Amino acid sequence: MSYTAPVKDMLFAINELAGLDRVSSLPGFEDANAETAQAVLDEAARFSEEVLAPLNVEGDRNPSSWKDGVVTATPGFKEAFRQYAEGGWQGVVHPGEYGGQGLPKLLATPCIEMLNASNLSFALCPLLTDGAIEALLTAGTEAQKQTYVPKLISGDWTGTMNLTEPQAGSDLALVRTRAEPQGDGSFKVFGTKIFITWGEHDMAENIVHLVLARTPNAPEGVKGISLFIVPKFLVNEDGSLGARNDVHCVSIEHKLGIKASPTAVLQFGDHGGATGYLIGEENRGLEYMFIMMNAARFGVGMQGVAVADRAYQKAVAYAKERVQSRPVDGSAKQSVAIIQHPDVRRMLATMRALTEGARALAYVAAAHSDIAHRHADEAVRADHQAIYEYLVPVVKGWSTELSIEVASLGVQVHGGMGFIEETGAAQFYRDARILTIYEGTTAIQANDFVGRKTLRDGGAVAKVLLAQIDESIEALWEHASFESSAAFQALHRHLTAGRAALANVVEFVLEHAKGDPNAIFAGSVAYLKLAGIVLCGWQFARALLVAASKRDEDPSFYGAKVATAHCFATQILPQALALEASIVEAKNNEGLLALTEAQF
Amino acid sequence: MSYTAPVKDMLFAINELAGLDRVSSLPGFEDANAETAQAVLDEAARFSEEVLAPLNVEGDRNPSSWKDGVVTATPGFKEAFRQYAEGGWQGVVHPGEYGGQGLPKLLATPCIEMLNASNLSFALCPLLTDGAIEALLTAGTEAQKQTYVPKLISGDWTGTMNLTEPQAGSDLALVRTRAEPQGDGSFKVFGTKIFITWGEHDMAENIVHLVLARTPNAPEGVKGISLFIVPKFLVNEDGSLGARNDVHCVSIEHKLGIKASPTAVLQFGDHGGATGYLIGEENRGLEYMFIMMNAARFGVGMQGVAVADRAYQKAVAYAKERVQSRPVDGSAKQSVAIIQHPDVRRMLATMRALTEGARALAYVAAAHSDIAHRHADEAVRADHQAIYEYLVPVVKGWSTELSIEVASLGVQVHGGMGFIEETGAAQFYRDARILTIYEGTTAIQANDFVGRKTLRDGGAVAKVLLAQIDESIEALWEHASFESSAAFQALHRHLTAGRAALANVVEFVLEHAKGDPNAIFAGSVAYLKLAGIVLCGWQFARALLVAASKRDEDPSFYGAKVATAHCFATQILPQALALEASIVEAKNNEGLLALTEAQF
Repeated sequence: MSYTAPVKDMLFAINELAGLDRVSSLPGFEDANAETAQAVLDEAARFSEEVLAPLNVEGDRNPSSWKDGVVTATPGFKEAFRQYAEGGWQGVVHPGEYGGQGLPKLLATPCIEMLNASNLSFALCPLLTDGAIEALLTAGTEAQKQTYVPKLISGDWTGTMNLTEPQAGSDLALVRTRAEPQGDGSFKVFGTKIFITWGEHDMAENIVHLVLARTPNAPEGVKGISLFIVPKFLVNEDGSLGARNDVHCVSIEHKLGIKASPTAVLQFGDHGGATGYLIGEENRGLEYMFIMMNAARFGVGMQGVAVADRAYQKAVAYAKERVQSRPVDGSAKQSVAIIQHPDVRRMLATMRALTEGARALAYVAAAHSDIAHRHADEAVRADHQAIYEYLVPVVKGWSTELSIEVASLGVQVHGGMGFIEETGAAQFYRDARILTIYEGTTAIQANDFVGRKTLRDGGAVAKVLLAQIDESIEALWEHASFESSAAFQALHRHLTAGRAALANVVEFVLEHAKGDPNAIFAGSVAYLKLAGIVLCGWQFARALLVAASKRDEDPSFYGAKVATAHCFATQILPQALALEASIVEAKNNEGLLALTEAQF
Repeated sequence: MSYTAPVKDMLFAINELAGLDRVSSLPGFEDANAETAQAVLDEAARFSEEVLAPLNVEGDRNPSSWKDGVVTATPGFKEAFRQYAEGGWQGVVHPGEYGGQGLPKLLATPCIEMLNASNLSFALCPLLTDGAIEALLTAGTEAQKQTYVPKLISGDWTGTMNLTEPQAGSDLALVRTRAEPQGDGSFKVFGTKIFITWGEHDMAENIVHLVLARTPNAPEGVKGISLFIVPKFLVNEDGSLGARNDVHCVSIEHKLGIKASPTAVLQFGDHGGATGYLIGEENRGLEYMFIMMNAARFGVGMQGVAVADRAYQKAVAYAKERVQSRPVDGSAKQSVAIIQHPDVRRMLATMRALTEGARALAYVAAAHSDIAHRHADEAVRADHQAIYEYLVPVVKGWSTELSIEVASLGVQVHGGMGFIEETGAAQFYRDARILTIYEGTTAIQANDFVGRKTLRDGGAVAKVLLAQIDESIEALWEHASFESSAAFQALHRHLTAGRAALANVVEFVLEHAKGDPNAIFAGSVAYLKLAGIVLCGWQFARALLVAASKRDEDPSFYGAKVATAHCFATQILPQALALEASIVEAKNNEGLLALTEAQF
């Protein structure tokens, strides 16, 4: 099997760290208990392992292809998508009234992880469709919801996000695509969109493009952008498909990775105008798009966890099989499997620690989202929403940054074979490289993290989390295992130091953002990484407490968790201090900000 | 121009850091003065920029190809190689008596950097040829030298290193290729070698393969390996080419990067035996191969510097051109070039600092090598040789590890365009990925660094370098600029801390290597990286002292050096503490070493 879903670790994160019991006590989630979790994950694992994982290499070797405006997905993808649709997987998290299963995000999240680990390129299509569904449910009219959402959930149709234009990447203020009202409630859309993931393909009968465009006389900048539905095929009153709309794929990109996922250049309105329908109110398009973006950003964070885990699994398999050199401790006279060598064990343990930590944090974030949506008490909802929103840029930014490092270590474990494409390790290194870029680069996440998530509330949420970390630090200290466990001591020591670094940086950001914004934003990515490291370290502290008390129930699993927590403490957490130093010494016009444009 | 050789910074490193005056005072290097340096570098720059750089993308798009045993290099490469040969570039560092120019390694090193920065795939052919020349000069008979070396230096022929076999990668004890004596002084060689860089091609009329093989009844393991010359075409007494030898390229690899460089599977002796000639003594092959390896390892370290610089230059060019978003400090009302944004400046400055630091350290190492070869005093030679040997694994391991990070940052600066292959940034990310693997993985470098370079002399060389670092720290403190310069203060503070971390780790390695080798070797890569960071930080301290005193002579250049040193101090040097922590807490059977094979 080329991918084995880590169901046991997922259930550990769901049950012990994210707190499934709390989620299943929310209104509407009563059935989402431990048995449901096990059943859903087992079924998702089967589908991912058996149907999607074998197609991953195929997608790299036979990318989706373009000819005369038609995009044909990698062989096997269309049939796999049909099975995906029939299995009801697109609807896991969406409401039952539109055909979904209405499960909590906490249970949808491992499904997303498995989907992406087994086949990142394939999974992008459902990920974008999820975003389109979210935006329609939030801002669409009831008629729009009824027209589009059930078809998207059933997998008959898929969805896309159309933001980027050649001159407007991270800077959506520069969007030029225009939408002209036709007097009948519809619009004609004209413009060029690039980097449209699964923007054209043959896996579904229709594609629902959600498109940012400007109406006539709209204000300049981001306050003049509206959101439109532009279906590939117009939809008749009875729901059947009508005329082909004037949106055409003029090319797809030749990319470093995720080659099976067609990245389209879409031309709107070259033949008279593409028919579009306004979603929600005019000029509020960016706001609605952010609904899609936030769902998608969390999803991309899970892609980071997913590709990291897949790279880890592949490296472990190779390291157990490849025999090379005698052990350095003289414990054998002949060559041994390279997993016996300390540096290979270091690489594998580091890959594992980074991946498990990122998984734990993302699942915890998912539970906050569920509580934020469903809790009976509005204040509780607000508190959890704030924490979730603080965590989204971290889940997106940190999980994807580490996925590149993990995939690179995966290549390294393979030695020379890692550089040979047929081995397959290099695909993860190439695929992962997009994750820190799309749905907002790490810098964009970090800007959000500093601006909306830290400065706006004066660091209030950050301090709530710091207080929760303190409780875990205290619990480590008070635990019966502390005296005898090197893992407890190491995690206590390094999490305490990391927590202090994070607290200092939050204060630094609050203090200097106004007076020296350049220095703060120069350190913003480091602040995001620091938060990622400390928050994942915190999850390991919580995991260690559980593992210590349950160790006898499953010595191998919990023993591995103790060792992995220990590894995270000594290999990853110390980086917090380096990140802190890189941030707090930044000043405008000094050091890295002193180089003028001409000097570069 | 897609590549502009950084001649000014190279000359700074040569003259001010490596000390060209000291090298040009050595016997035989009298002509290697500042004028020569300038002239050689200018000419190498012209050739690299004009002839080789434009072919770099071509090599990625049209890799060298195999058909029926014949390998055809990327279009344009054969003609470029002819120009390379005619320019005398293969002989820069080799002795005049065989047709070389006999220049110091200190002046050959920037040439190697430019060659690799302009075209990494192309440069591998000369790099391997250099190794073959070194091995022949060291261990060959006079007749062998006369037969092969002038032709290799003239570029009529090229050289290869044949070590790896399918079952013998890092572990050369497993080499199975056999060599049977024919009674006439020649041998028949039989076996399969893989991963042979430029192992077959059409750029030269002959290829001189240097091959590791076992003679009958040779001892097992690495003590039974001998080195053989196996030319593609046998050489007649008069030096003309004779019969085609029984060595054939049966395939070349499909690789992640360096695609223009054919990586051959060579079959020796399938048609009766490949004629080979023993070099030096039987069973000492590994020793001779290490001569090639050490030259090649330094060369691969330079490849790291080279690809990092090229990735940096490309990212700077894009960042100056791409307009996106308003400045965060409100200094402009319209969108600006992204180089104005603090996070982009952070990425570019970090790329620059890593690259310049690695360049400086490598050039300093090259000067040590020159003194070690030519100084009149044997004790001085021995001291410098010991320092050079300590630095080689650092130059190889650290420069290549950072090149991956720099190339990845280069992609990130380009945003979505970075992921599109036509942009070209992704090529560096793919190409760089081999550098930490071939000529010994980073772990192999780190093993060497711990074993042969630290333990064997009880840390003596490490302590010599630590004492020299102390002198530079003291000089920062005593400098007139200290009080007023944030760069001086930051570098003083972080270099002091980094130096202490390195010293602690050296002691830790010395103390525990025997009792807990697994822990030491689990931390060996971190020790190598720590040394790389501190030693490069030290070069920045030395550079800062020069820049402060010369600033008025060239405010832009020296001002940039001050800023870059400051950037290295706050962005890179603090990582020393994290690395120290990851090393000194390692214990066998704890943390990352506690996971059993089954638990992975």
